[in-house]
Amino acid sequence: MSVWTHPDSGTWRTEAVFSEEALIRIPSDIPLHTAATLSVNPCTAYRMLMDFEQLQPGDSVIQNAANSGVGQAVIQIAAALGLRTINVVRDRPDIHRLTDRLKNLGAEYVITEEELRNHEMKNFFKDVPRPRLALNCVGGKSSTELLRHLAPGGTMVTYGGMAKQPVIASVSLLIFKDLKLRGFWLSQWKNDHSRDHLEELILTLCHFVRQGQLTAPACSEVPLQDHHHALETSMHPFTSSKQIFIM
Amino acid sequence: MSVWTHPDSGTWRTEAVFSEEALIRIPSDIPLHTAATLSVNPCTAYRMLMDFEQLQPGDSVIQNAANSGVGQAVIQIAAALGLRTINVVRDRPDIHRLTDRLKNLGAEYVITEEELRNHEMKNFFKDVPRPRLALNCVGGKSSTELLRHLAPGGTMVTYGGMAKQPVIASVSLLIFKDLKLRGFWLSQWKNDHSRDHLEELILTLCHFVRQGQLTAPACSEVPLQDHHHALETSMHPFTSSKQIFIM
Repeated sequence: MSVWTHPDSGTWRTEAVFSEEALIRIPSDIPLHTAATLSVNPCTAYRMLMDFEQLQPGDSVIQNAANSGVGQAVIQIAAALGLRTINVVRDRPDIHRLTDRLKNLGAEYVITEEELRNHEMKNFFKDVPRPRLALNCVGGKSSTELLRHLAPGGTMVTYGGMAKQPVIASVSLLIFKDLKLRGFWLSQWKNDHSRDHLEELILTLCHFVRQGQLTAPACSEVPLQDHHHALETSMHPFTSSKQIFIM
Repeated sequence: MSVWTHPDSGTWRTEAVFSEEALIRIPSDIPLHTAATLSVNPCTAYRMLMDFEQLQPGDSVIQNAANSGVGQAVIQIAAALGLRTINVVRDRPDIHRLTDRLKNLGAEYVITEEELRNHEMKNFFKDVPRPRLALNCVGGKSSTELLRHLAPGGTMVTYGGMAKQPVIASVSLLIFKDLKLRGFWLSQWKNDHSRDHLEELILTLCHFVRQGQLTAPACSEVPLQDHHHALETSMHPFTSSKQIFIM
């Protein structure tokens, strides 16, 4: 198995000829679903945890959309690195099932968007160190709340905008708490780094997989001819399963 | 003449005893108004120009509130460093007089908030390199416009919020243009740096003063007993003069 260094060369095909340089071999003991989902979401999660703040074991990280593909990878990789995660999700009918599932992945805390806005969060941070890193995939009010809870000097990294609303940051948090707002896009990281760097990243993630510290997100296999069904499913709210095409 | 390293120890007095360590001597050839206004706004301007992006002569910087005390210092220090400034001001009856005054200080371009929102700014950036640094003292829509014109990878530093509105950043600018949002507060910089660093900063600014590259902003001398008058004047819109108390 292998992954393309630049997947924009086309992945929807059964056969292709590439130069060896354009591929990175995935060790054969990595399960198929994990290999197929390794080169995007877990890479994004790892880079965001490593490249913006120098975190030490015991430090905490806060993220919204914690149930997304990246969110689940953040939970697992952070746990493997000894980091504590505060995971924000939308309230839903089966919230306890979701909470249990994320905690099984290594999430230390799972809280809803509503709980995050609640003033009792003050007490929460009596026991838990304030995070120096926030990972934002939502934007709008959700990201404003993440910022509010960051430690002085902390960074919020935006990598998605599910709420289709901009990031809103109070002037005083920027000036007096020295908060930093950044963005992350894996494609840009790949453009800015060599193939060797990407291979090193993939092999680091494979190490986590072998240690049982990183698993594929829940996946549903879908034959390519049923792509309409897969696209529809992916648009449902609270879908917690990746649609993987079988060719 | 000297300035306090930590002015929170009290400046409204005619006599005081300090340790030598708590003071930084201002060379005696620096004019009184300049010395009296050197330790805040020009320090802020210099640090923001130096500490966030590595700018080279010929690079451009965009700022709003360009007529503020910090804004005027930015114009002069940037010009001394060979940087080109794009200066955004509010439209007003005597806009040409203001434009001429800022250009005399070294401003390469002076444009109004309305012109900044105009789509013809596209053509503007055919001739002028897109700025990698934006300095924001306003917030709200004005800062959103500054962000829109930054070069990829550029930084916007917020040091004030005159519009009393938060900074609003589109998710796509953060992710796909890798824009960085930061804040600056001189008091925090002083806390984080030694007295020697502050002295070096003051002496660098004195060098610009001696070269005729940095002058005090327009000042009105006001006897301390007329403080009500000074406070009232400072609240008028478009006031372009610092109220300096004489004791």
